[in-house]
Amino acid sequence: MQRKVDVAIVGAGTAGLAALAQVRRARRSFVLIDGGELGTTCARVGCMPSKALLQTADDFARRSAFARMGIEGAEHLSVADEAALEHVRDLRDIFVDRVLAGSTDELGEDFIAAPARFEAPGTLLAGDARIEAQRVVIAVGSRPYVPPEWAPFEAQLLTTDGVFELETLPRRLGVVGLGAVGLELGQAFARLGVEATGFDRLTTIGGVQDQTVSDVAAQTIGKDFTLHLGSEARLEAAPRGLRVIAGERAAEVDQVLVSMGRVSNVASLGLEELGIALDASGVPLHDPASMQVGDLPVFIAGDASGARAVLHEAADEGRIAGYNAAHSTVTRFRRRVPLHITFSDPNLASVGPPPAELPDAVVTGEMQFGPLGRALLMGKNRGLLRIYAAAGDGRILGAQLCGPKCENLAHLLAWAVQQEMTAPALLRMPYYHPVIEEALQSALHNLLPKLDLQPSGLVEFAAI
Amino acid sequence: MQRKVDVAIVGAGTAGLAALAQVRRARRSFVLIDGGELGTTCARVGCMPSKALLQTADDFARRSAFARMGIEGAEHLSVADEAALEHVRDLRDIFVDRVLAGSTDELGEDFIAAPARFEAPGTLLAGDARIEAQRVVIAVGSRPYVPPEWAPFEAQLLTTDGVFELETLPRRLGVVGLGAVGLELGQAFARLGVEATGFDRLTTIGGVQDQTVSDVAAQTIGKDFTLHLGSEARLEAAPRGLRVIAGERAAEVDQVLVSMGRVSNVASLGLEELGIALDASGVPLHDPASMQVGDLPVFIAGDASGARAVLHEAADEGRIAGYNAAHSTVTRFRRRVPLHITFSDPNLASVGPPPAELPDAVVTGEMQFGPLGRALLMGKNRGLLRIYAAAGDGRILGAQLCGPKCENLAHLLAWAVQQEMTAPALLRMPYYHPVIEEALQSALHNLLPKLDLQPSGLVEFAAI
Repeated sequence: MQRKVDVAIVGAGTAGLAALAQVRRARRSFVLIDGGELGTTCARVGCMPSKALLQTADDFARRSAFARMGIEGAEHLSVADEAALEHVRDLRDIFVDRVLAGSTDELGEDFIAAPARFEAPGTLLAGDARIEAQRVVIAVGSRPYVPPEWAPFEAQLLTTDGVFELETLPRRLGVVGLGAVGLELGQAFARLGVEATGFDRLTTIGGVQDQTVSDVAAQTIGKDFTLHLGSEARLEAAPRGLRVIAGERAAEVDQVLVSMGRVSNVASLGLEELGIALDASGVPLHDPASMQVGDLPVFIAGDASGARAVLHEAADEGRIAGYNAAHSTVTRFRRRVPLHITFSDPNLASVGPPPAELPDAVVTGEMQFGPLGRALLMGKNRGLLRIYAAAGDGRILGAQLCGPKCENLAHLLAWAVQQEMTAPALLRMPYYHPVIEEALQSALHNLLPKLDLQPSGLVEFAAI
Repeated sequence: MQRKVDVAIVGAGTAGLAALAQVRRARRSFVLIDGGELGTTCARVGCMPSKALLQTADDFARRSAFARMGIEGAEHLSVADEAALEHVRDLRDIFVDRVLAGSTDELGEDFIAAPARFEAPGTLLAGDARIEAQRVVIAVGSRPYVPPEWAPFEAQLLTTDGVFELETLPRRLGVVGLGAVGLELGQAFARLGVEATGFDRLTTIGGVQDQTVSDVAAQTIGKDFTLHLGSEARLEAAPRGLRVIAGERAAEVDQVLVSMGRVSNVASLGLEELGIALDASGVPLHDPASMQVGDLPVFIAGDASGARAVLHEAADEGRIAGYNAAHSTVTRFRRRVPLHITFSDPNLASVGPPPAELPDAVVTGEMQFGPLGRALLMGKNRGLLRIYAAAGDGRILGAQLCGPKCENLAHLLAWAVQQEMTAPALLRMPYYHPVIEEALQSALHNLLPKLDLQPSGLVEFAAI
């Protein structure tokens, strides 16, 4: 079967569906192709089920504060494994159904449920169809990375593809890779009663790059589960289960959650037909401002592009790729300021470029959450907030955060960075009391005397 | 005893201490005078003890979500009144001590522990001292308003001055006045097991002025305690306790929390000696940009000025008053955008001027929290967010909020209003997933088609 369309979109995940919305808005003919399981990575195995599990774990962990507050009976609380895990799946199913409704469900013959492969730059094969497309959007997503040498242990390995299918909690769990996924799930399982041990070859965790901030996080989260940092982990068979070994440290576990990042699925597309340059992971070189691959009428978006696998960036890349695929000229767009959040307790977040990539003339303002009123009232006053600013004009360049409600503070900071606000300008904004946002105010007051600014008048107000 | 100083500050609360910091920074001689109980209203009877009580109540109320999540045993949880209330006082004492340390504690003879009274514009009497001051800051604070005709019931009336001294929970509590204080404490007591009934003469609650948003709040919070809105309450003696009557509705209670606002303490100052104009509540007319009283070398700050009794505004007024009292010319400053938060569950917040005071050409974007992913995951998806923008250019003018984590969303919105950001500019900011901030993104998408803007390209990005 031969088809001619304006745009072919390969992949019906977050990026593909965002691209589709742009193509439809521009009233182009299209075909959407996906040979895998439908529903986005976010809804099926990512953001949503993990946050459902975290919510349960956080609520259960909160019982440790009860006695102090005068709430009695916490010792009678327990978690019913099967019910807790089924609740996670129930919520997940709601989110997956929601993604499917109004997307692939109603496309009819504009949707092809088969894997796609390039035959030539403008030609794709999918099932029994040969599709000639003026432009193509590649949004084939990603899959969890598992070291090939661990194949013999496959039966005892979990990834996000399988972990939410568990019907009971494992007794002993190794977690290899302590980015957002490993840290969130490891802490959640530990709080639900699993004996969890985490490993990462880096000395920083949860996507935070500032070692000092990460150390505060590791110290706090390390009370929930043991963290072994700074050495690469390897696996060995053990009499009962697996042994995870990293440098001098080791743990015997029943299963291992492999949370070492994701790899693009582009390999199956036959990109060799495009005659284009690929990076070391096999991802075609592309312009992140337009998502264009080389100078071809081909655009790439979402996890397939090899960028950090976070939903809002995947959706953005889909929008940009879809927009450009639907228009005759290619537009380059200013991307949002980098924002990354790990929903552990305390939250971790990074805003802007990694501190190591900031210019030389940077000063740092910091605030520990220890003395912060609201944090004390919440009984969650462990954490550290660091803000980086240009020494000359005080412009906020980025931040790294570990603390309560830092998912929210990170938004304020990311927005400030994107608007190129200065520290004095931020201090003129309203901060209510008692709120966690006051930590930001304190960090800015800590920053201010380190700037090359001569403050006059009241820093909190502009004179009229 | 005769004293001559550059600046006399009357009142050692939040505003007075903020003024003092400015006076010291400018190296002026000063005297601080306070004849009342030390420690700020915020720490003693305001923000801090109320938030301590709310935290306990919220944690206890959370047990209703446990069974659904697979956490068993919630039925064994109970609140030990005395311990819970003592925990609130323990936390309060920490905050009061913190305020005292480093303020009045170390002032020596620069602090006079006596009430002050004007003898003439530049002369104050306090205890056995007559103080001649070049400039005066009035920061005498406020006290809870109680209708004078309720004096006969005094023994059964509570205000924030006494409510945190309770050693056990009352069985039946009337709450008259459902602003932030009444709503927060009423809900908290109800969640801890008190049979609470709330009354307000307005039809809106918690400082929210948008009737639709307030209705959503009343419906949700009304599940915790009965709310009678729209009729003025009066009291009658009842066989056992008091009867609170408002229009057709009535409740018999053991005690009544009177949370009808606060009144300035200026009456005791002998302001008649200043020969200046007073407003209807007896507060001297003053310029909110400079806090100057008339054209006198007198400045007023904090609750004494009669403005909304919120800490950050009191501190701001103290800074401005102190700065101007310490300098020879009076500077007018641009005040922060109005921000008010009620820490009920769901949170209520208002940003910017009341909707009724906005210009005519305003459009409203709204989002219900019902379908929001993160709100569903939290099991807290009741709420409504409304954003008001100028129809012409989409500039954000204000917002009214009821929902989970709206204390945080309100900061993003207040900062956006103060920076005069437009709806399209806000949509270019990063929103992580799944976060409550996405409610704001949805409300903006709801707003966008109502503006007189012709969107081209991608609304989420500026072209480079």
